[in-house]
Amino acid sequence: MDAIERLIRPRSVAIIGASADPTKTSGRPVAYLQKHGFAGDIYPVNPKVAEIGGLACYPDVASLPDVPDVGIVLLGAERAHIAVRELSERGTAAAIVLASGFTEMGAEGAARQQQLMQAAGSMRLLGPNTIGLVNLTDNIVLSASGALAMDRFPSGPIGLVSQSGGILGALLSRAAARGIGLSKLVSTSNEADLELADFIDFLAGDNATTVVALYIEAIRNPARFREAVLKAQRAGKPIVAFKIGRSEAGAKAAISHTGALAGSDRMYDALFRQLGVIRARTFEDLLDIPALLVAGRALRGRRVAILTSTGGAGTIVSDSLGVAGFTTPAPDAETAAQLRALQSGSHAALDRNPIDVTLAGLQPDLLRAAIKILLASPSYDALAVIAGSSAVGSPALMADAIHDCLPLSDKPVVAYVSPYAPDVVSVLTRRGVPAYTSAESCAAALDGLLQAGMPNEVQTSGSIATTADVSDFPAGSLDEAQAKALFARFGVPVVAEKVVATPGDGEQAARDFGGRVVLKILSHEIAHKSDVGGVAVNLTAETIGARLAAMADEVALRTGNRPERFLVQEMISGGVEIILGMHRDPLGTAILLGMGGVTAELFKDTTMRLLPPEGGLSLVEARTMARDLVTWPSLDGFRGRPKCDVEALAATIVAFSRMVAQLGDRLVEAEINPVFVLPAGQGVKAADGLVVLNV
Amino acid sequence: MDAIERLIRPRSVAIIGASADPTKTSGRPVAYLQKHGFAGDIYPVNPKVAEIGGLACYPDVASLPDVPDVGIVLLGAERAHIAVRELSERGTAAAIVLASGFTEMGAEGAARQQQLMQAAGSMRLLGPNTIGLVNLTDNIVLSASGALAMDRFPSGPIGLVSQSGGILGALLSRAAARGIGLSKLVSTSNEADLELADFIDFLAGDNATTVVALYIEAIRNPARFREAVLKAQRAGKPIVAFKIGRSEAGAKAAISHTGALAGSDRMYDALFRQLGVIRARTFEDLLDIPALLVAGRALRGRRVAILTSTGGAGTIVSDSLGVAGFTTPAPDAETAAQLRALQSGSHAALDRNPIDVTLAGLQPDLLRAAIKILLASPSYDALAVIAGSSAVGSPALMADAIHDCLPLSDKPVVAYVSPYAPDVVSVLTRRGVPAYTSAESCAAALDGLLQAGMPNEVQTSGSIATTADVSDFPAGSLDEAQAKALFARFGVPVVAEKVVATPGDGEQAARDFGGRVVLKILSHEIAHKSDVGGVAVNLTAETIGARLAAMADEVALRTGNRPERFLVQEMISGGVEIILGMHRDPLGTAILLGMGGVTAELFKDTTMRLLPPEGGLSLVEARTMARDLVTWPSLDGFRGRPKCDVEALAATIVAFSRMVAQLGDRLVEAEINPVFVLPAGQGVKAADGLVVLNV
Repeated sequence: MDAIERLIRPRSVAIIGASADPTKTSGRPVAYLQKHGFAGDIYPVNPKVAEIGGLACYPDVASLPDVPDVGIVLLGAERAHIAVRELSERGTAAAIVLASGFTEMGAEGAARQQQLMQAAGSMRLLGPNTIGLVNLTDNIVLSASGALAMDRFPSGPIGLVSQSGGILGALLSRAAARGIGLSKLVSTSNEADLELADFIDFLAGDNATTVVALYIEAIRNPARFREAVLKAQRAGKPIVAFKIGRSEAGAKAAISHTGALAGSDRMYDALFRQLGVIRARTFEDLLDIPALLVAGRALRGRRVAILTSTGGAGTIVSDSLGVAGFTTPAPDAETAAQLRALQSGSHAALDRNPIDVTLAGLQPDLLRAAIKILLASPSYDALAVIAGSSAVGSPALMADAIHDCLPLSDKPVVAYVSPYAPDVVSVLTRRGVPAYTSAESCAAALDGLLQAGMPNEVQTSGSIATTADVSDFPAGSLDEAQAKALFARFGVPVVAEKVVATPGDGEQAARDFGGRVVLKILSHEIAHKSDVGGVAVNLTAETIGARLAAMADEVALRTGNRPERFLVQEMISGGVEIILGMHRDPLGTAILLGMGGVTAELFKDTTMRLLPPEGGLSLVEARTMARDLVTWPSLDGFRGRPKCDVEALAATIVAFSRMVAQLGDRLVEAEINPVFVLPAGQGVKAADGLVVLNV
Repeated sequence: MDAIERLIRPRSVAIIGASADPTKTSGRPVAYLQKHGFAGDIYPVNPKVAEIGGLACYPDVASLPDVPDVGIVLLGAERAHIAVRELSERGTAAAIVLASGFTEMGAEGAARQQQLMQAAGSMRLLGPNTIGLVNLTDNIVLSASGALAMDRFPSGPIGLVSQSGGILGALLSRAAARGIGLSKLVSTSNEADLELADFIDFLAGDNATTVVALYIEAIRNPARFREAVLKAQRAGKPIVAFKIGRSEAGAKAAISHTGALAGSDRMYDALFRQLGVIRARTFEDLLDIPALLVAGRALRGRRVAILTSTGGAGTIVSDSLGVAGFTTPAPDAETAAQLRALQSGSHAALDRNPIDVTLAGLQPDLLRAAIKILLASPSYDALAVIAGSSAVGSPALMADAIHDCLPLSDKPVVAYVSPYAPDVVSVLTRRGVPAYTSAESCAAALDGLLQAGMPNEVQTSGSIATTADVSDFPAGSLDEAQAKALFARFGVPVVAEKVVATPGDGEQAARDFGGRVVLKILSHEIAHKSDVGGVAVNLTAETIGARLAAMADEVALRTGNRPERFLVQEMISGGVEIILGMHRDPLGTAILLGMGGVTAELFKDTTMRLLPPEGGLSLVEARTMARDLVTWPSLDGFRGRPKCDVEALAATIVAFSRMVAQLGDRLVEAEINPVFVLPAGQGVKAADGLVVLNV
């Protein structure tokens, strides 16, 4: 049995610093273990006490009669390392250190954490600054937190790992009140050693767990997170994550324009999406979504039947489902006929949706009959049942009626409870009908279930087949011509262009290209040339000379430096402008695709994909990126326009991503802005870009 | 006393069709009145019974010893009108008709409702299909709904009017559980007579009400709604509305491009915004926001201090506030020093935000001291206190500590309750500290309070000073040239243009204009000319002739009709493209401003204002519209571009709105697309547009 197995299902637990007073924090671990009937050995350790809760108390770790699987260290931050060392020396599998005062408290705390890790040696460590864990499957509490005081734990198949300790009590009490059952509850907190990924990995193999829920503040080790998530998914266990930091987006200063569009929270969005992790948008949804996933039912589409006895609540649910992209179509003729046959002479509305059965009091048989019809109906993929005030008096009656119908179909059934009625919520949920008091929660849960049923985005990355020799590029900011030469080296198509210095050279270049041309200053330093008057379009051999001279004057006036080199380029028209960039973040390196033009920053229409460990992105990922954009229809023949060369764009995304992958840390920054995507068959052209290389 | 006063505070109530069995629906009204100690006269009417609940029962309305203020009609849809007629004949102030089976049930029901209204004569009528009303201020229940069974009502200053009856029970039980107090609870339902506006008007003058909350399905009479809302606001009473139909947006078919962008739900958004009605985004927020408004405190900015004893929950609240546009800055140096002086030697983090006081158990004095410091701190506009599991054991202790500090400042204080702890929520709210179990609710409530403190959008509309004579325009679709002539008649600047028929005419026109020109087909029928190849830009006198001939061929091929007339226009460049349109809706007529270009439809960057009863929009409203757009920065000198002539745009919006107001029903459709907004001082130019006129 490995250390994490022993931590979660210990046969023996030592409590270092245990108190004989069960009302004190340090008295709780022994009291909790005893209260919930821990079958293994409990070893309280305290030199000042002889006995705790009827158990022999030991003066120190060395005196313990046997090696404990787990040691709970209740000592303060200054002394915790001593107990940790002693536990490690005895061969304990894992220690839980509850004290705070480590990395969360600055440099002094970080040094203390370092000392703690050295003391742990090969022993695994949970915390510090953790509130520990609860194994609800086996009724084992390894914690001193008052928030976990509870006579009976709500046991069930959701494994919950949290990087915040404080939140565990809230999740546990909220889950218990709603009838939602948990398997394991772990607080990883400072993650000096054991981290999120370790417990995802454990839960992937835990028979009592079918769904994993995560409360995340920061993923310290993206590669291990990725591996553990993929393992859980191979085991058929969906993962739901609530990630703090949604409002940090845009707050981070970023060097380049592209970087400014890609806040760190969006990287998490990209990571979750690529890995198929379902993101909970609110803290409530961290329970809302798993509550439905554990029912193990399958959602195959977006059509929801709403069965109600109270008009207003049905409308609210219908409205929220609509906002979330679900539809609530009226029943087909046959379903409507079956429903109508249920009630006669009443004012019930049975051929609409919400389907209003106007229950005068609660009539379980009518409910049962209506649910059977709706579960069998080809018009619907899911069913939402509204519990009104008639359910309050007899919650089990309604719950049992729905429960009886569940085996008839594997379509999901959720309940919305309209009045304040915690008993109704809890009974329904425990009977396999996850119940919600907010219509947004119903919608979020169904949306989560839909996501759980979708295949992950293909992760087969292209290998770096054609590595390019780039040793000839200098360090620092490349000028525009060099940047495009670098892109071209990896297979990105670029515009024809020529570097010139004088009006006469400019005229010659324009004549050589034929057609209309663009004139730009060529500079290592100026990132946004148009801001200083350094770009002119629509020029001809006749007009370029004078414009070049005027441009030199204007840029000199605005920047204090007279430009000496210029770029003459063929002018591209008729394409759609796209930005292709990269973004580095503690989570990894991402490729960013966005709408081009100056309005790009206003609408923030961008999408990102993290580079996989193996190299660049795949063609499949590149194509999906293009389809992610709000502006996708303008690439796809919107309003009678020609379809653009999306295949060439996808190939260019892949080429760019391979460049980023190959250059690795040597690449500080890279952006193509714009890439013109021309009509289908005509390819793409990179018209401008920037690159910064490390030494 | 007027009829609505008598309906809400009756001295006597007749119940037509009362039953002696209090467990029956028809037994409830008498039982409810008696249970809550109704001090006036109760007259049960039922020919088959002599006595109900110890009261004399009358055989019919004619036999009543006195004229009742209110008659509750419990008869079915088929017979209700008989009782209504009798009550009206006796001089009853108002009848409440509970039966369903009227307009909500198709044509037959509508006829029945008509009959009911005729029977009512000058008597006012609530319903039909209503569950009635509860006057919580005076403990008077006029309803037969089982959902209103309650021993004690949560009395307080929120007046609630709902167009759905079914939802009242949910709101009442949810409010009661949370410690939120209501003054009046009215279900208007079918609104055969008394409607939303009547009760808003009543609540505006009701001393027991300080905040009005509305559950809206459709505003049947926008003008009366507007008047009542403005009256309530003059009385200093904010209005919060939850409007069903958020997901209908975009579902309505609309003739023109502009119409397609402006779904009916957006009209409600515009109406609410113009009138200063605070829109609740979720059903929960319909209680969340009023719960804070009734505290009567003032929010002057967006800086929120979060005081917590549990890290995770503070972070969740901080994150949600950030998403909603609030900031959670760290305390200034002096505030931080004061906070640090509160606790020593602990690992508490007192110079950050969330401010973590690490309460070992609940220490009311420490809490009180910290709250005093934060309320006095110049760093904060509001305070959010987190209740963790330590509050569960002694909810009043925490509530009292916060409550004691409230008189020290008028800054708002809200609470977030992290564990499941309904008692904590209720006690806090009742002590004047509105408590929430979701971080999004905290943010919504603070946002609502901020909106309540903002002045309404200026409603001073410009009078139609210069009416234009438009009798010379034909009915039907105007062609582009005619449409622009109409716009110009009202003062909209339009591009120079000329109608031509042959390549030779085109060449002459291009020569006359000088510079580059645009060529378009001129047609009454084709709305989207570019979709059929009917637009060419960037032409000169040299190229226009051939292009005209080619265009005629292409359009003929694509549409089957050979165009015979063309428009040659000066070509505008360098401006920002804007769309100006109108939208008719049951709520009224709106002016729509949006980003131009083909991507407008993708990003839906539009804003609307309803025309006021007096005529066109004001310049102030027009300027605010421009600032509403996501694309506003591109008008305002974004990224070194020249600032655009926003004043000329505003004047054009006003001119267009006056045209729409003057033409009234004669105008079926009107859109300018695009208006080029040129650099400041250079004005605007309407370059294309469409108009459809009625006969």
